[in-house]
Amino acid sequence: MFFHRQELQHKASPDRPDAVYARKLQEVLGGQYGEITVAMQYGFQSWNVHLPGKYRDLLFGIGTEEFGHVEMLATMIAQLLGDAPLGITDDAVQDDPTVAAVIGGTDIQHAIVAGAGARPVDSMGNPWMASYITASGNLMADFHANANAEMQGRVQVARLYHMTDDHGVRDLLGFLLARDTVHQNQWLAAIEQLKEDGLEQLPVPSNFPQRKEEQSVKYEYINFSDGQHAGDGRWAHGPTPDGQDEFTYVAEPDSGVAMPPPTRPDARFYGTTDMPNPVEKVAGEVQDKLKTE
Amino acid sequence: MFFHRQELQHKASPDRPDAVYARKLQEVLGGQYGEITVAMQYGFQSWNVHLPGKYRDLLFGIGTEEFGHVEMLATMIAQLLGDAPLGITDDAVQDDPTVAAVIGGTDIQHAIVAGAGARPVDSMGNPWMASYITASGNLMADFHANANAEMQGRVQVARLYHMTDDHGVRDLLGFLLARDTVHQNQWLAAIEQLKEDGLEQLPVPSNFPQRKEEQSVKYEYINFSDGQHAGDGRWAHGPTPDGQDEFTYVAEPDSGVAMPPPTRPDARFYGTTDMPNPVEKVAGEVQDKLKTE
Amino acid sequence: MFFHRQELQHKASPDRPDAVYARKLQEVLGGQYGEITVAMQYGFQSWNVHLPGKYRDLLFGIGTEEFGHVEMLATMIAQLLGDAPLGITDDAVQDDPTVAAVIGGTDIQHAIVAGAGARPVDSMGNPWMASYITASGNLMADFHANANAEMQGRVQVARLYHMTDDHGVRDLLGFLLARDTVHQNQWLAAIEQLKEDGLEQLPVPSNFPQRKEEQSVKYEYINFSDGQHAGDGRWAHGPTPDGQDEFTYVAEPDSGVAMPPPTRPDARFYGTTDMPNPVEKVAGEVQDKLKTE
Amino acid sequence: MFFHRQELQHKASPDRPDAVYARKLQEVLGGQYGEITVAMQYGFQSWNVHLPGKYRDLLFGIGTEEFGHVEMLATMIAQLLGDAPLGITDDAVQDDPTVAAVIGGTDIQHAIVAGAGARPVDSMGNPWMASYITASGNLMADFHANANAEMQGRVQVARLYHMTDDHGVRDLLGFLLARDTVHQNQWLAAIEQLKEDGLEQLPVPSNFPQRKEEQSVKYEYINFSDGQHAGDGRWAHGPTPDGQDEFTYVAEPDSGVAMPPPTRPDARFYGTTDMPNPVEKVAGEVQDKLKTE
Amino acid sequence: MFFHRQELQHKASPDRPDAVYARKLQEVLGGQYGEITVAMQYGFQSWNVHLPGKYRDLLFGIGTEEFGHVEMLATMIAQLLGDAPLGITDDAVQDDPTVAAVIGGTDIQHAIVAGAGARPVDSMGNPWMASYITASGNLMADFHANANAEMQGRVQVARLYHMTDDHGVRDLLGFLLARDTVHQNQWLAAIEQLKEDGLEQLPVPSNFPQRKEEQSVKYEYINFSDGQHAGDGRWAHGPTPDGQDEFTYVAEPDSGVAMPPPTRPDARFYGTTDMPNPVEKVAGEVQDKLKTE
Amino acid sequence: MFFHRQELQHKASPDRPDAVYARKLQEVLGGQYGEITVAMQYGFQSWNVHLPGKYRDLLFGIGTEEFGHVEMLATMIAQLLGDAPLGITDDAVQDDPTVAAVIGGTDIQHAIVAGAGARPVDSMGNPWMASYITASGNLMADFHANANAEMQGRVQVARLYHMTDDHGVRDLLGFLLARDTVHQNQWLAAIEQLKEDGLEQLPVPSNFPQRKEEQSVKYEYINFSDGQHAGDGRWAHGPTPDGQDEFTYVAEPDSGVAMPPPTRPDARFYGTTDMPNPVEKVAGEVQDKLKTE
Repeated sequence: MFFHRQELQHKASPDRPDAVYARKLQEVLGGQYGEITVAMQYGFQSWNVHLPGKYRDLLFGIGTEEFGHVEMLATMIAQLLGDAPLGITDDAVQDDPTVAAVIGGTDIQHAIVAGAGARPVDSMGNPWMASYITASGNLMADFHANANAEMQGRVQVARLYHMTDDHGVRDLLGFLLARDTVHQNQWLAAIEQLKEDGLEQLPVPSNFPQRKEEQSVKYEYINFSDGQHAGDGRWAHGPTPDGQDEFTYVAEPDSGVAMPPPTRPDARFYGTTDMPNPVEKVAGEVQDKLKTE
Repeated sequence: MFFHRQELQHKASPDRPDAVYARKLQEVLGGQYGEITVAMQYGFQSWNVHLPGKYRDLLFGIGTEEFGHVEMLATMIAQLLGDAPLGITDDAVQDDPTVAAVIGGTDIQHAIVAGAGARPVDSMGNPWMASYITASGNLMADFHANANAEMQGRVQVARLYHMTDDHGVRDLLGFLLARDTVHQNQWLAAIEQLKEDGLEQLPVPSNFPQRKEEQSVKYEYINFSDGQHAGDGRWAHGPTPDGQDEFTYVAEPDSGVAMPPPTRPDARFYGTTDMPNPVEKVAGEVQDKLKTE
Repeated sequence: MFFHRQELQHKASPDRPDAVYARKLQEVLGGQYGEITVAMQYGFQSWNVHLPGKYRDLLFGIGTEEFGHVEMLATMIAQLLGDAPLGITDDAVQDDPTVAAVIGGTDIQHAIVAGAGARPVDSMGNPWMASYITASGNLMADFHANANAEMQGRVQVARLYHMTDDHGVRDLLGFLLARDTVHQNQWLAAIEQLKEDGLEQLPVPSNFPQRKEEQSVKYEYINFSDGQHAGDGRWAHGPTPDGQDEFTYVAEPDSGVAMPPPTRPDARFYGTTDMPNPVEKVAGEVQDKLKTE
Repeated sequence: MFFHRQELQHKASPDRPDAVYARKLQEVLGGQYGEITVAMQYGFQSWNVHLPGKYRDLLFGIGTEEFGHVEMLATMIAQLLGDAPLGITDDAVQDDPTVAAVIGGTDIQHAIVAGAGARPVDSMGNPWMASYITASGNLMADFHANANAEMQGRVQVARLYHMTDDHGVRDLLGFLLARDTVHQNQWLAAIEQLKEDGLEQLPVPSNFPQRKEEQSVKYEYINFSDGQHAGDGRWAHGPTPDGQDEFTYVAEPDSGVAMPPPTRPDARFYGTTDMPNPVEKVAGEVQDKLKTE
Repeated sequence: MFFHRQELQHKASPDRPDAVYARKLQEVLGGQYGEITVAMQYGFQSWNVHLPGKYRDLLFGIGTEEFGHVEMLATMIAQLLGDAPLGITDDAVQDDPTVAAVIGGTDIQHAIVAGAGARPVDSMGNPWMASYITASGNLMADFHANANAEMQGRVQVARLYHMTDDHGVRDLLGFLLARDTVHQNQWLAAIEQLKEDGLEQLPVPSNFPQRKEEQSVKYEYINFSDGQHAGDGRWAHGPTPDGQDEFTYVAEPDSGVAMPPPTRPDARFYGTTDMPNPVEKVAGEVQDKLKTE
Repeated sequence: MFFHRQELQHKASPDRPDAVYARKLQEVLGGQYGEITVAMQYGFQSWNVHLPGKYRDLLFGIGTEEFGHVEMLATMIAQLLGDAPLGITDDAVQDDPTVAAVIGGTDIQHAIVAGAGARPVDSMGNPWMASYITASGNLMADFHANANAEMQGRVQVARLYHMTDDHGVRDLLGFLLARDTVHQNQWLAAIEQLKEDGLEQLPVPSNFPQRKEEQSVKYEYINFSDGQHAGDGRWAHGPTPDGQDEFTYVAEPDSGVAMPPPTRPDARFYGTTDMPNPVEKVAGEVQDKLKTE
């Protein structure tokens, strides 16, 4: 069960309206790595989790905080739009390049659809989609997904920080950056915790019987591009992070196997094959007739 | 530039057709974490990369291999569909529960749209979407995205392994599992390499000036759910993975700040506000008239 | 701010696993009119609202309850999947038509992607999309959207009720039906409240100056189909619900106006027009050359 | 069967081209509540309807009119684009802020994809999607959906009205506003007609046996947010609109029930559980081997 | 303007209900090449056309017929669903493999969302999307798109023909096949007409000044795969269809040009570059500080 | 298998950065008819093809080239963004209308999401979708799809050519135009080759037994719009392109057949029918009770 208190975790008021920036801020509300994504991602991970106790508590704890971040950003965006200009019926645009920028740079649906309100979309107007989220049931994989989400999110907030000089907006972004910092640290810590608790190891999933893998190509870097430097990295020599082997470098892919011959499905799929010549075709039609009548 | 050789990196032929399994296999071809995703993800990362040398070579090298994996899976699926039944005009379904299963469990578009061919969709028929991929320009963040993609992909292939006993299919899956193993190890190694080379550190992005973050909430675990165990994990006490501080545990969120008052945009957005009473409304209409005529 | 308690508003445990039904239940979790939709819809309406006080409280109050409904359904679905069969490697399908049904009727991503967990999708596997929600800033319009959402939702739950005889599932559905009943009543009551408070009237939006509408076609039912009975309904005669006029019935549309002539844009758009003959084309090329070089 | 006459129901020609406004107008052509939506929505409702006579005639009658509205808007947009500038190869932008606005504010695909033609998209360029429409077979629910669609549509057209001062455009919008006025009245009248005819009542669906609902929470307003005023509205006390009961106000949600314990699916899903310790894991592998070979 | 008559162009009633087939038939109603696609495609082409007279009449004429085909298929599907089973609460599935097939093979939303009605989706449940349609303003290109659409559509209907033995369904499909036959012939004839009328030639667009193209690679077949036979086709030697040259065959791609060096954008994008070493980083931070404060 | 060489088929470097144009160029990278579409389309056609030899070689050959075109465009876009301005914190916009245009006209995600990198989206920011591609297994149909794709693509590139005067960009577009010219010629040549080889004829699919089509409406142009000129085209008289008959012109559609009566599904779908009056309803509830308990 969720409960709501009519407060915000941090102040979310701009110094002044800015409809162009409101659109940009939509990215971290409704984009691929926006707050809706992390809120829903941690939510589904917690509802599907197979472990009671600290891991489930962690998922619920951070997930619920993120729903509050959704609210802070929506509230901020609504205020940035508070005095948004309605359009260009006034003559402003002829005289004022700032107005021209505003007109070109806003999310038009902020005005037409939401009446100067926040929208569940990214900065280009794509509606948020649940295909952004990840919840596999394997916590080692999912915690990597979570760490990545917090990193991508923090990169985006950092970029947005430099696109405004509004102190109210920057104050909120500074808060979000701090929470992204701790959250990315926490998911990385949770990965370590999983290992310590003996619940998961590398490679993920760790309890698939590795002897069923093709042994000959394990831990090989195979160079499918003609760059000369890939062999210089830690991914091409030395111990593998899962501690099971050493990387080897293969400068050129081995010759593969011949492609199987093309398939030739049932004639009633009407694909193009090399069978029909005029005679065969008539024969085929007769056969078809027998089949289909 | 890409070049193509009419060979496969590994044999990709099933022992026998299986249209139901063909549909399942679509997940790792055209799903969120399928081979199209990783091929395109590494592709865009390499085209956008800001570093010459070993990192770019790595991205091109693995990315190009993945396009070949797309090809292997498409080839396998086409063969699994090679003798797919066309429908239920025969009386088979009345007599044979396996046929019933086949009819219910296939991707119908395999037959109607592709004529017994592979499709660029996931196992539920959703077309592959470019919003699955990640390429931020920040390699630390992106390598975490890549490690996650290989982990999710390997989890899915491992599950698929147990859903068939066809030796040809399992042979290919065993090969893909091995390559997923090495690739997830390689992206983790690349993360270490970035740190060693002094190019990126935690938190990501590492060169955003951290003093601009809100200091009071950094490295706090704030418990927004009433679970009692979140404080037991490494994410709530001890040193943070970025090496900059210690986690602290906050059992209950601090009181926040009051929500800002609702916005009251221009009346011509026709949102509902508490202004209009019958008298004001007439006044408003007059005003509107002056504005808009 | 949102807070979470590790309880459910109502018991959400099935008598027994049922992977086929789990897929069906996804519709009211992640479908067009599922619980994610109403939770997010009321959320965005509350963040964008222009009125303090009872209307905002109402939106927050019901909206937050709906997030708890999302959780109840996700929890139920995870349990329905708890013992889901993994695939068809066993020989069960040959012997047991129920297994055949299960195999054909499940959401395959429940197994491959979520590892027997709930997913943010509808019953056909389409990911939830934010374009399902409505938040216009006009409460009269939005409360109609809300009433509709609760009605469509209750119709779907009612249908689902008859598709299972599991008592645990039916118990939860009985609870959801009751809440849908009260919620649809509440949005209809809120519509009346808006009228009483003098905040909005019909037609929506009520403060657009109606004299700017084309007067000649207001309140006419114009019959564009050849059915003979549309004139018998209350929509074709008698007083209009907004209390401003009487409906009239127009048995056949008036003759319209001629279509404007086709547009003929700049030649550099390379649309097909009737200008170019061989001579003009050369002339055009010369002109193009001058323009573009 | 549909028939077409090369006339428009109302004049649809602008005074002058305006590519920026053409983009805005796309919202009511191809957006969530644009004309394509209502045309297709009423179409599917009429094809699926279970009643002959006046209701079906109504759906066909209005639905067919809406296809003509699609045409009027597409025609208008094509003309607004008639002399659209092609780009910025000229030096205009350096000198003229209006041109700058135009360049930033247009739908780029109007030029590149459609060659100065209308497009089946909304004002942010999202293609129209059939998931916008509603056709449940329950007319009471669907007529509420229709009333809402006409209200949302009229709100959007009203907003658009103030974003231009082109008399030709405003003339068409004035016509559309009038038709939206009558249509929203008509769907509300149709709701009354259904009740009068004894075909449907509240709550929707009215013939689900209400005794199967959970009785204890029916007609309760449960306050999941800490706002103090929700109890003041008609949704929290007094008779319910369905005439069956009185609302009651519950200031704080009752304590719920404990969450069920986490699920623990088949090990071959490779989710993270608390089972495996090093010993169990070996045992598990042996067991897996037996199962899968 | 469109008008509707409550008749169908051809009989559209099945011999008996068949919910599994209803789902399959959705493909040619709401799929990529279904009737909604061609109706909307020809519609937008006609509204955007730059030519009065016979071409516009052709587009309106066929386009309007296609709206009637949408109606015929929706009507057929609703009837196929007329007696659809509601679910599996009965014991039928235990006893009857046909029921098992039905349960697995239906579009679940036919029942839960549409109440046994047609839906605007394809056979896998993907909602129809306007990104399926093409209307470029260039009639030569668009008529090829139209011919392709009719061909793909006819292939799909032909496949569907063999998936049922219901005489009513086959009767309708036989009608649709005939109309697809004539329509694909008509778009090919229209292509010839455009050439005859001197309005468009090959290559499309024909009035782009070809001397601006890179001359050295025109009309070359360049073999990027190692197949030995591509040189045997008419695409590799002999006159080109546009009558302007001869094809030549290039057995191996020429060496290309070196890739440009990686980009190095503004540091405030936080991409990974090779600049920052510990010293530079401090310097960078100072610089950032000056920039951003 | 694919291999990569770190070269480009043609130079892809602009004279100067231009973030507004970078957005426009996205259309032919990630749009409906962009390079990703043709690369993936020819890829899936080749993996699904039923013929060995020259047709498969052709598909692989051109398809692989197109992957290289994806790379050239991504490389070009990254460079156009190389010095993109970060935002409007500087005062530039007040002084410089060009900056205003840039701000309004860029793809915001280029900055926030990709850090000045290319994105897999179209010019309006819609992510590339696999539903853009076509691979039916019928080569005659698919080659028409391919010819159309190259035509639409060339029209778009031609339009883009006039939207810049950057010599580096135009040099690349001139190269792409040349390749589009040859590719559209090649697919048309391949259509001829199929006919010559006796593999496919018109109408597509050519081996469906045409006597099963409804004979009475074959080759009729039926005029569903009131335009007077459609009868003047080659699609309404004279020999049909498939060589099997003559077109005929039908000035007005024949009267159709009556619509079937509405369906009346199981009451438990809760659709609205004309059965229930107050008495019947009670009876119905009793019946329901018996059915569902």
